[in-house]
Amino acid sequence: MAFRAAVAGASGYAGGEILRLLLNHPEIEIGALTGNTNAGQRLGGLQPHLLPLADRVLEATSAQVLAGHDVVFLALPHGQSATVAEQLGDTALVVDCGADFRLEDAADWERFYGSPHAGTWPYGLPELPGARAALEGSKRIAVPGCYPTAVSLALFPAYAAGLVEPEAVVVAASGTSGAGKAAKPHLLGSEVMGSMTPYGVGGTHRHTPEMIQNLSAVAGERVSVSFTPTLAPMPRGILATCSAKARPGTTAEAVRAAYEKALADEPFAHLLPEGQWPATASVYGSNAALIQVAYDEAAGRVVVVSAIDNLTKGTAGGAVQSMNIALGLPEGLGLSTAGVAP
Amino acid sequence: MAFRAAVAGASGYAGGEILRLLLNHPEIEIGALTGNTNAGQRLGGLQPHLLPLADRVLEATSAQVLAGHDVVFLALPHGQSATVAEQLGDTALVVDCGADFRLEDAADWERFYGSPHAGTWPYGLPELPGARAALEGSKRIAVPGCYPTAVSLALFPAYAAGLVEPEAVVVAASGTSGAGKAAKPHLLGSEVMGSMTPYGVGGTHRHTPEMIQNLSAVAGERVSVSFTPTLAPMPRGILATCSAKARPGTTAEAVRAAYEKALADEPFAHLLPEGQWPATASVYGSNAALIQVAYDEAAGRVVVVSAIDNLTKGTAGGAVQSMNIALGLPEGLGLSTAGVAP
Amino acid sequence: MAFRAAVAGASGYAGGEILRLLLNHPEIEIGALTGNTNAGQRLGGLQPHLLPLADRVLEATSAQVLAGHDVVFLALPHGQSATVAEQLGDTALVVDCGADFRLEDAADWERFYGSPHAGTWPYGLPELPGARAALEGSKRIAVPGCYPTAVSLALFPAYAAGLVEPEAVVVAASGTSGAGKAAKPHLLGSEVMGSMTPYGVGGTHRHTPEMIQNLSAVAGERVSVSFTPTLAPMPRGILATCSAKARPGTTAEAVRAAYEKALADEPFAHLLPEGQWPATASVYGSNAALIQVAYDEAAGRVVVVSAIDNLTKGTAGGAVQSMNIALGLPEGLGLSTAGVAP
Amino acid sequence: MAFRAAVAGASGYAGGEILRLLLNHPEIEIGALTGNTNAGQRLGGLQPHLLPLADRVLEATSAQVLAGHDVVFLALPHGQSATVAEQLGDTALVVDCGADFRLEDAADWERFYGSPHAGTWPYGLPELPGARAALEGSKRIAVPGCYPTAVSLALFPAYAAGLVEPEAVVVAASGTSGAGKAAKPHLLGSEVMGSMTPYGVGGTHRHTPEMIQNLSAVAGERVSVSFTPTLAPMPRGILATCSAKARPGTTAEAVRAAYEKALADEPFAHLLPEGQWPATASVYGSNAALIQVAYDEAAGRVVVVSAIDNLTKGTAGGAVQSMNIALGLPEGLGLSTAGVAP
Repeated sequence: MAFRAAVAGASGYAGGEILRLLLNHPEIEIGALTGNTNAGQRLGGLQPHLLPLADRVLEATSAQVLAGHDVVFLALPHGQSATVAEQLGDTALVVDCGADFRLEDAADWERFYGSPHAGTWPYGLPELPGARAALEGSKRIAVPGCYPTAVSLALFPAYAAGLVEPEAVVVAASGTSGAGKAAKPHLLGSEVMGSMTPYGVGGTHRHTPEMIQNLSAVAGERVSVSFTPTLAPMPRGILATCSAKARPGTTAEAVRAAYEKALADEPFAHLLPEGQWPATASVYGSNAALIQVAYDEAAGRVVVVSAIDNLTKGTAGGAVQSMNIALGLPEGLGLSTAGVAP
Repeated sequence: MAFRAAVAGASGYAGGEILRLLLNHPEIEIGALTGNTNAGQRLGGLQPHLLPLADRVLEATSAQVLAGHDVVFLALPHGQSATVAEQLGDTALVVDCGADFRLEDAADWERFYGSPHAGTWPYGLPELPGARAALEGSKRIAVPGCYPTAVSLALFPAYAAGLVEPEAVVVAASGTSGAGKAAKPHLLGSEVMGSMTPYGVGGTHRHTPEMIQNLSAVAGERVSVSFTPTLAPMPRGILATCSAKARPGTTAEAVRAAYEKALADEPFAHLLPEGQWPATASVYGSNAALIQVAYDEAAGRVVVVSAIDNLTKGTAGGAVQSMNIALGLPEGLGLSTAGVAP
Repeated sequence: MAFRAAVAGASGYAGGEILRLLLNHPEIEIGALTGNTNAGQRLGGLQPHLLPLADRVLEATSAQVLAGHDVVFLALPHGQSATVAEQLGDTALVVDCGADFRLEDAADWERFYGSPHAGTWPYGLPELPGARAALEGSKRIAVPGCYPTAVSLALFPAYAAGLVEPEAVVVAASGTSGAGKAAKPHLLGSEVMGSMTPYGVGGTHRHTPEMIQNLSAVAGERVSVSFTPTLAPMPRGILATCSAKARPGTTAEAVRAAYEKALADEPFAHLLPEGQWPATASVYGSNAALIQVAYDEAAGRVVVVSAIDNLTKGTAGGAVQSMNIALGLPEGLGLSTAGVAP
Repeated sequence: MAFRAAVAGASGYAGGEILRLLLNHPEIEIGALTGNTNAGQRLGGLQPHLLPLADRVLEATSAQVLAGHDVVFLALPHGQSATVAEQLGDTALVVDCGADFRLEDAADWERFYGSPHAGTWPYGLPELPGARAALEGSKRIAVPGCYPTAVSLALFPAYAAGLVEPEAVVVAASGTSGAGKAAKPHLLGSEVMGSMTPYGVGGTHRHTPEMIQNLSAVAGERVSVSFTPTLAPMPRGILATCSAKARPGTTAEAVRAAYEKALADEPFAHLLPEGQWPATASVYGSNAALIQVAYDEAAGRVVVVSAIDNLTKGTAGGAVQSMNIALGLPEGLGLSTAGVAP
C-alpha cells in the first residue's frame, strides 16, 4: 500500500464511512484514528460494524497525531479544520469533509455559518466542469455537502446546456445519518420512524449557497435555488427532486441529449435508461449517483431526480474519489457502484 | 344510532380506515361489508386490526347487498362506482372514495383514466371555498384524492389571496398504503424500507388534473402544477412541499396573514405556530392537516408544507367529514385531531 | 364529565399516550399537566400529535398543582412516585405508571432498582386472577411494566391450568418508545432503523422479577423466567414469544381449551382463531392484547405469542382500564380494540 | 481472474447478493446469468443496485447455458437443483443455495419439504467441526439455511463443550428479504413496517430439522429445538436468541472460555467483548456473525445471541466462503467483515 491515511473524527458517521471505504482501498493503509470526547475508547464500541478495526483505540485529535501521514481526512465539526490544516503543512493531502473551505463568497459563509471565512479549497465534486483539473495534484480538498452533491449532479447538465431558467426548485429527502450521531430528541428512532418532516425551509439551510455557487458557475449567471430539505425515515440516502422552468424551444429530446452528453464518461454519475427512476436503496453504500430526467410539457418544467448515498457519494465516497484524483490514482479505486440491496 | 352505513371494498386500506372511523362514530351503525375476491371471508383475517368486526363476513359487492342503507361508502377500483351508484338510487347517500366523479373536465378524465367520463359530484374537501354549501344535503360525494387533499389545503390560501403566480411546484412524499393492498414486487417491504423513489414524474400522475382543477377554481385563472410524487418508507402519511413564485409586493407578513385568515375557523386544517413544521407522524390516524408556510425572499417563492394521513384526512376521514356535512351532523363527529404518536 | 384528571409527566411518551386516551374518554376532563425540565412550555411543541391540547402549558410537577383532581396519573421516573402520592392523600385516585409499587419483594426491588422499597399497590393487570377485585374502589393503582403485561397475559392461562413446568423462556421484541424520550445515541433513528439488538440479557432486565411475581402467583409455585428483551425497528409494539416445557400428559387440545377458558370473557385479552398469529401492527394504538398458542410436540413445549402496544395496553391503556375499574366505570370506557393499521 | 462463475436465479435476492459479492471477488469472472420468468430482461431493471451489471441480460435457466463454467451457483426454488446439478456433471463446482441437499434424514426432508429426498452434499458452514475438511476440493456444496447458520454458530460451542442440556429454545427475528422477492400481501411494506409477527410456530418451520441435525452432530446426542421465527421490519438481518438449560456445574467462566476457544481462529464467527451485544445493523452486507453469550444463573440457562446478515453470511457470503475453501482459495477472498452502517 502506497499511502498512509489518518482520520480525524473517526467515531462519527462520516468518519466511519471513510474507514469502511479505506478498508477496501488497495493503496491506502489506515493510520491514526482520532476523536474528541471518545478519545481513549476502542473503535469496536463506537463503530461496531467496522470489525477489522475493532481493537483500534482513538487518540485525541491533534496536529501531532495526524502528522506523518500522506493523507489526512478531517471529519470535524464546522470551523475546526482550518487550524488543523495549517499545522499539517503542505506535505500531506488534507481532505476536509466539513464545510469550512467550500464557499467562495465570504459574506455567504458568514451569514450561514456565523464565523470568519477560512478560504476556499479545490472542490471535491469531480463531475463539475473544471473540477477534475483543480483536484489533480492538489494538497487540499473541500468535500462538498451531501445535498449540494445530489443537487449539483442533477442540475448541472441542464444549466450547462442552457436549457432552463436560472430559478431552480429543489425538494430533497435525506436519511437521518445526515443529521449526525449527536443524540437529539427529534432524531430518536421513535420520532423519525414512520415520519417525514421538513426543516431549514425558506432558504435557511446552510447548503443553499453551495448549490447556488455550483449551479451559477455552470450557468454563467446567478441561479436562485428554492431548497427544502426533508428528513426521511431511513438511515441513509438522499433523493433530490429538482426542477426549473424550461427555456423557450426546449424539447424532451434536447433534454435527454444534454444529460447523455454531460454524463457519458462519468464513472459515478449515471443517467438511467428512460422509464427507470432512481431509488435510494439502489445506492446504499455505493458511490453511484443515479439520475433521471423528464420534461413536463404541460407545466413547462424540466424535472430531474437524483439518488445518492449521503454518506458515500455524498461524503466519504466523494472524498475518496477526489483523493484518488489528487494522488494520481485511478479515480474509482476502492469505490463501488454496486449498492447493498435490498 | 341514527344512520346505517355499508362499505363496499371493506378489505382494502381505504375500506379498513372507513370502518375504523365508523366504529368510533356515535351516529353510524355498520351494516353490510362487501368485497370482491375476498367475499365469504371473515374480516378478522383481512383486517386483523379491526377486532370489533373480526367475525363479520364479507359479502360479494352488489346493489342488492348495499341497498337499504342510509349511507354507502364505495372504496372500489376506479371506474366501478357509476354503475353501483345508479342502482342505489337517490335515497342513499353515496360516498365515492374512487376518482370517478372528481374531475369536471371530461377530456382530463379520459386522458388520465382512459375510460368515459361518468360526471361530477359535490367534492368532499369542505375547506375549499364553496365546498361546504355544495355538500350540505347532497346525496352524492366525490371524496378527493389523497395528494390533491394535501396540496389543495396547502396552496388554496395563497391563491385565494392572490399572493403567488399560477405556476405551482409540488413534491410530495407518500406512505406506501397510498399504493393500495394489491401485492406488487416494488411495494414489498424489502424494497420500500430504507428507500425513497419517485414515480409518475413529469405530469403523468392521475392526481395532477385534480390539483389543477382545485387551485384554478380558487385562483380564478388556470394554475399549472408540476407534481412529483415519491414513495417514502412509512405505511401512512403524506408530506407535500409546495411552492410558487411570489407576486410582486408579497411580504412574509402578508403570506402569514392570508393563511391565518383562510384557516382560522377550520376544524381540521391547522396552521402551526411560526417556527414549527409539520411531521406526518403527528397526524397518524388523525383527521388533521398540519400546515406551515414560509416566504423565501432570496428565491422569491412562497413555500408551504402540509402533512396529512393519506388514509384518514386523505381518504376515509375526509369522507366521514363530508358525510357529516351532507347528513346535517356536526362536521367533526367521530373524527379526532389527536394522532397516534410516537 | 364526572371526573377531572391530572397528568404528571405529560411531555413523555407514557404521558402523551395517557392524554391521547383521555381526550377520547367521555367521563374524564383533563386538568393539570405537569413536567419537569419542560415546565412552562406549550404542549404543542412537545406532543405535536395532541392538537386539541396544543395550547396547554406545562406546570412544574408538585403536589399543589396535582391536588384537587379526582385522578392523578404519575408518569415519572422511577423513585419519584411515593413522595408525590403521600402528599396527595387518599381522596384522589393515584395511578402510578412507574415501577415503584409493583414488586412485593423488597429484596427484589432493591436489587433491581437500587433504592428503598416503597410498598405495593393494587396491580393494574385486571386479567390476572383476583386483580379486578383488588382494583375495585382502590385509591391506588400500580400500572404493570409493558413487558410483564405482554408476558403475563401470554403465560398465565398455561400456569393457571397447570399445563407447563415452572421454567419459562421469553424473548420479546419492543418498539423504541419503550426506551423513553430521553435522547441517547443508541436510540437514534440512524441506529435503530434496520436493526435488531438485545439488551438486559441474562436475567438483568428490571421487568424480570415482575414477571416472576405474576406467574408464580398464578402457578402457586416459584416460576423462573429466562427473559431476553430486544429492541426492534418500530416506534411501538411488543411481540412476546414465550414458552415452557409441557407437563406430562399435556395435549394440544388441552392447551387450547385452557386458553379459551381463561380469556373467554376478557374484553382486551383476545385469543386469535387457530392459524392466525398476532402482529404488533394490529394493535397499534389499541388496548387489545392478541394471543395465540401452539403445542410443539417434538420439542415438548407450549409456545405462546402475544402482541400489545407497549404504550397502550402496556402502559396508558392498562392504566385507564384499571382506573375505570377503580372508579366504578365500565371497564372499556374510552378504550378501543381497533388498531390503526396499516 | 482464475475462475468463471454462472448464477442461476440471478433476479432474486440470493442471486443478487451472490453477484454483489462476486463483483468484488478478485478471482471470479461473472459468466452466465439466468432467470425463469425474467429471462430476456436486463439485469438493470431487476437488480438496480448492481450498476456494473445493468446491461447484462438474463438467459433462461438450462444446463446448456450453465455448462462451461468453473462454478455454478444455484439460487432456485426448492426441488429444482438436483436435475440441474446432474446435467452439469462433475467438472463444475455446484453451489446450491436451496435446501435440496442439506438434510441427511430422508424422512425429515419428506416431512418438511413434501418431495423425494435428493441426497446430501458437503455442508457449507465451515465453522462446524469437520465441515472445512469436507468442503476442501469438493465439487458440490449445500449452502445452509439462513436461520440454521445463525443458530448453529450461536449454539455449537455450548454443545461442543457439553455445557448445556439437549433442549434448545430459539426465537429469531429475520428481515423480510428472507421471505424472498415474490409479491405476497403480507410482505407488502405497508404490512411489515412497524410490525413484528411470528410464523411457522410450533416446530413447523423447515429450518428446524436442519438446526437439529447440526446441533445433534456436535452434541453427540439428539438435541431438540423449539424454534420460533419472527418477521421484523427491516430488509436484512437475523437476530437469533438461543438458550438451553445449563448442565450441573456450569459456570459463567466456563461458558465464556468455551466460546473463546471455539471461535478463536474463526475469520467470520466473532465473539464480542464482554458487555457488547450484537446488532444486525453491524453486519449489514458483511459476512461476519457476531456472537455474545451470558449465563443466567437465576434461570439456570445459557443465553446466546447471534447476528448475521441473512443474505450475506446467511446465504451468499456463506456460499462464497465455502466456494473459496472448495477451490483452494483463501477462505475470506472477496468477503468483508465491515458492515454498511448506520
